[in-house]
Amino acid sequence: MAASSNPLIDDGLVDFLLYSVLDAESLCELDAYRQHSKETFDMFIDSVRRFARQDLLPTYKPMDEEPPVFQNGRIHTHPALPELYETMIELGVLTATRPESVGGQQIPMLVYTLASSYLMAANLSAYGLIGLTHGAAHLIEAFGSDEVKERFMTKMYEGKWTGTMALTEPHAGSSLGDITTTATPTDDGHYLIKGSKIFISGADHQVTENVVNLTLARIQGAPDGTKGISLFAIPRLRVERDELVSNDVTVAGLIHKIGWKGLPSLALEFGDEGDCHGWLVGEPHQGLRYMFQMMNEARIMVGVNGAATASVAYYESLAYARERKQGRKLGSRGGDMVPIIEHADVRRMLLRQKTIVEGSLALLATVSRYTDVAAHGATDEVRERAQLLLDLLTPIAKTFPADKGFEANTLAVQILGGYGYTSEYLPEAYMRDQKLNTLHEGTNGIQSMDLLGRKVMSKGGAPLHALGEEIRSTLARAREAGCDAELCAALEEAVGIVGAITIELGQRGMSGDADAMLGHSWDYLDMFATLVIGWQWLNMAASAKTARLSEERKQAIDAATQYWIRTEIPRIALLANLCRANEDSYIKAKPSWF
Amino acid sequence: MAASSNPLIDDGLVDFLLYSVLDAESLCELDAYRQHSKETFDMFIDSVRRFARQDLLPTYKPMDEEPPVFQNGRIHTHPALPELYETMIELGVLTATRPESVGGQQIPMLVYTLASSYLMAANLSAYGLIGLTHGAAHLIEAFGSDEVKERFMTKMYEGKWTGTMALTEPHAGSSLGDITTTATPTDDGHYLIKGSKIFISGADHQVTENVVNLTLARIQGAPDGTKGISLFAIPRLRVERDELVSNDVTVAGLIHKIGWKGLPSLALEFGDEGDCHGWLVGEPHQGLRYMFQMMNEARIMVGVNGAATASVAYYESLAYARERKQGRKLGSRGGDMVPIIEHADVRRMLLRQKTIVEGSLALLATVSRYTDVAAHGATDEVRERAQLLLDLLTPIAKTFPADKGFEANTLAVQILGGYGYTSEYLPEAYMRDQKLNTLHEGTNGIQSMDLLGRKVMSKGGAPLHALGEEIRSTLARAREAGCDAELCAALEEAVGIVGAITIELGQRGMSGDADAMLGHSWDYLDMFATLVIGWQWLNMAASAKTARLSEERKQAIDAATQYWIRTEIPRIALLANLCRANEDSYIKAKPSWF
Repeated sequence: MAASSNPLIDDGLVDFLLYSVLDAESLCELDAYRQHSKETFDMFIDSVRRFARQDLLPTYKPMDEEPPVFQNGRIHTHPALPELYETMIELGVLTATRPESVGGQQIPMLVYTLASSYLMAANLSAYGLIGLTHGAAHLIEAFGSDEVKERFMTKMYEGKWTGTMALTEPHAGSSLGDITTTATPTDDGHYLIKGSKIFISGADHQVTENVVNLTLARIQGAPDGTKGISLFAIPRLRVERDELVSNDVTVAGLIHKIGWKGLPSLALEFGDEGDCHGWLVGEPHQGLRYMFQMMNEARIMVGVNGAATASVAYYESLAYARERKQGRKLGSRGGDMVPIIEHADVRRMLLRQKTIVEGSLALLATVSRYTDVAAHGATDEVRERAQLLLDLLTPIAKTFPADKGFEANTLAVQILGGYGYTSEYLPEAYMRDQKLNTLHEGTNGIQSMDLLGRKVMSKGGAPLHALGEEIRSTLARAREAGCDAELCAALEEAVGIVGAITIELGQRGMSGDADAMLGHSWDYLDMFATLVIGWQWLNMAASAKTARLSEERKQAIDAATQYWIRTEIPRIALLANLCRANEDSYIKAKPSWF
Repeated sequence: MAASSNPLIDDGLVDFLLYSVLDAESLCELDAYRQHSKETFDMFIDSVRRFARQDLLPTYKPMDEEPPVFQNGRIHTHPALPELYETMIELGVLTATRPESVGGQQIPMLVYTLASSYLMAANLSAYGLIGLTHGAAHLIEAFGSDEVKERFMTKMYEGKWTGTMALTEPHAGSSLGDITTTATPTDDGHYLIKGSKIFISGADHQVTENVVNLTLARIQGAPDGTKGISLFAIPRLRVERDELVSNDVTVAGLIHKIGWKGLPSLALEFGDEGDCHGWLVGEPHQGLRYMFQMMNEARIMVGVNGAATASVAYYESLAYARERKQGRKLGSRGGDMVPIIEHADVRRMLLRQKTIVEGSLALLATVSRYTDVAAHGATDEVRERAQLLLDLLTPIAKTFPADKGFEANTLAVQILGGYGYTSEYLPEAYMRDQKLNTLHEGTNGIQSMDLLGRKVMSKGGAPLHALGEEIRSTLARAREAGCDAELCAALEEAVGIVGAITIELGQRGMSGDADAMLGHSWDYLDMFATLVIGWQWLNMAASAKTARLSEERKQAIDAATQYWIRTEIPRIALLANLCRANEDSYIKAKPSWF
């Protein structure tokens, strides 16, 4: 099967989400997007998806097979990467969502998320440099002084220098309050940086002349813990007398990742020779706050990676299931073998993948729209409400596509049988790629603590209240549109269950019993995500009733909606029971019991 | 962390299963095992586990990193393999369960299963040659003529030639009725073989001088489909005038598997030059029957592979969780970082792994004991009952450790965080290894059809009735021993649910509606396995009450039992509902909907 026949993402779904479900055109009524129209949206998406299919996808397997090498202190990535990067810059991918003032097109995140999903599905490592550079430059745009913007951001948005996020340190992992990289002020406006970072993606390569690492460090004398962390821009090379000279940033090692092989992940040393200059971004000691303000963006991008990686693998397994003949239909003897898609259990694995992939994309498009409205909505009230929903749903939008996406990826391998277990076929590579998404930008466990310990409890429960309204509005629309009444009732019941257990857990938290509140945070996230994806499917089913879609597409949407609500929504009551009982087997377990 | 500190399998659990739960000593009262005692069992296990830890485990990573190469028509495996193989032969691993008449020690399968789990946990590829050779030689022992035994089996049991199972053909996969390899009779007692096979593990190497491929083929003029398939022994080299000469078996390709990298998996061509001799094993056209009579053995071995691979990864992640310091306890600020095992969500992932690993090992030990009793029990009645239970539980014993074992393996990766995503640490390799167990010797889907379409419905429901008695006997024992009454009640309720839905599905089958019976066969297997593992845990909890175990071990067994029954057993009602409703989303879905 030619990899290039893989559609990556379903064009019809993208169109449906944009113009039927989420009314992208209505965004053009907002000042920020007034220059846009369905035509400019479609033009952007078309150019991106054509590049993804024609140029990017064919480079995926070569880049997976020939990972970067570390030689003479430098990293050499796959030779195909520079040209791919250059083309993405030319297509305007890097600055698509940025305002014209910094060279962008101010395309809504809603449109960008769906467009970029093609790039990630085609070659997520190649896209990685774009995503990282955008995130790093956006941090400077949002918080940096004009001088720092001039020094770094401009070059980055032009695509001349790439960026990284340098948070993690070897001993501290996710525990950012414990980082020890230091920054010593000088009289020349910069700081001297000393410290070690690990798992820094894209921190060296031959694609552009320079890399700027957005780095968390402690200014000498800063308070302990998370309140003493500042944000610095630390270039690999610094400009001195109009020349780029070494900035004492050393590659200490290349991580041998099991996926995302096109994108180097490095251990870095800053200031081995005491000459690493860093420029403070924003105010001192505000680094973690800045980083977390941008974290929504990064986490949603991880979610898109998850959905995209599950999507491309789904299509690999679908093509295989249509071509591969084996066995016969149930109950028939003799005759020709049939394509395995004729077997119900294979369709089960396909429909499960499809439901996860498309449910994830719908959720990511929905939260991306909240991003747009939160930034550019017409009134304070509208913006605040969108921000509430965005904050609440971010841990789900990050975790679900990664975690259930990994399950979808393993189903793609399973459908290919013995062939799926070989590196001659692509699904195993996508399975490896996907696993990272459950780890980076906050592990599954951290997301679950963020959701239950912070997000649902914030602002007196306002985010959860807003989500409840959104779901009830979908329910009303679905009923009016004539969606299956039993499915609507099942979803409505689930909303009630999730609401009730959330209040109960919140009360435990307020009475100071954090263990009783958070002991089942993973089950809580699982439950919450199950509801949210059910909502997304019912929302699509309601829109489909009146949308101009083929009968087959409508039937497929109904089938996926039915699948999720019948198969997954019933788990919500069980998960709520575990949270309520605070089932204590692992909570009470002593380390010595293992 | 030194890999060699990994215990592979818990010695205390093995001892508990053998002598407290499953009364291995009572087997010594049977004629077949009269020469054995606790001392001979322990001696065998001790010698095997010592070799596994000291010699086998250190070779795992080198063999994963340097897979076999295909050069000049021959396969060259890792240089460490011949010595490892030789030592396993010296330890008597190959023939341990065989009778003295063929050079064995007639060790019960119960003991062998637990002993061999250490070998598989240490290096499943190296053990693979032993497992394959045993399976192939045992086929000849069971069905071959004296001449064929003399020609092949003797050399194989001596360890001088290895064996393979050559079933799969490129176009037919799991659909064995569609194989096309042909066998043409000659006047010299052998057949001329022509055909292609794929995914044949261990079919060439430099470890022994010869390989015998137990191969399915059609004798010319044989009936179509599964009833026309015969079993042949086809050596790589055949003896002519006391010399080994080529038998026209060609390696057509080396499969690039993603795991099990130490064991070559090959595409083979028989009879490219019309000179491939095969010797019929048993009667013509009985090949599939013979193969399936031995399939229990192979499938249980796959289950042990699954449990062992999950176990070794569990211990890697446990060691990491004890050593790695990150974050602080809930609600505490400042102070030193704590080992991540102090975080409830990490203990959740550890307890889930432990429950899957040890529940699997308990089930595999239980079915192995049924194997022993089915073959050597004192009365016809006892043997028949054990055979019923063995047949019924084989699809579970094969599938659960592989499928949930894969989940356990991904949790091990997750616990290691970013480090788990690198090939510097072992869990990712075990995750790759494990995936094969959901595919070979019958995929998950095939096992589910075997369970629901064949096993539970056979003999008027006698197997299910026998299992019900076993579980009720455990329930009575657990209540008498003072196990938690609510947990007992939950398991008892689940038995009722599984029984009722089985009867209902069986009635649909008998009325000729195969689709309504088998549409949710995967959910049925999931449900059935969930019950069976709950039974195994309660059985262990009941035995633990009176066993001489440390208090900590008893508490750990109770916690795991509680975890499974509270977390997983409630899913049984949901899965039964899906089967009952025959939820039709994917069943009715047309291929064009995807």
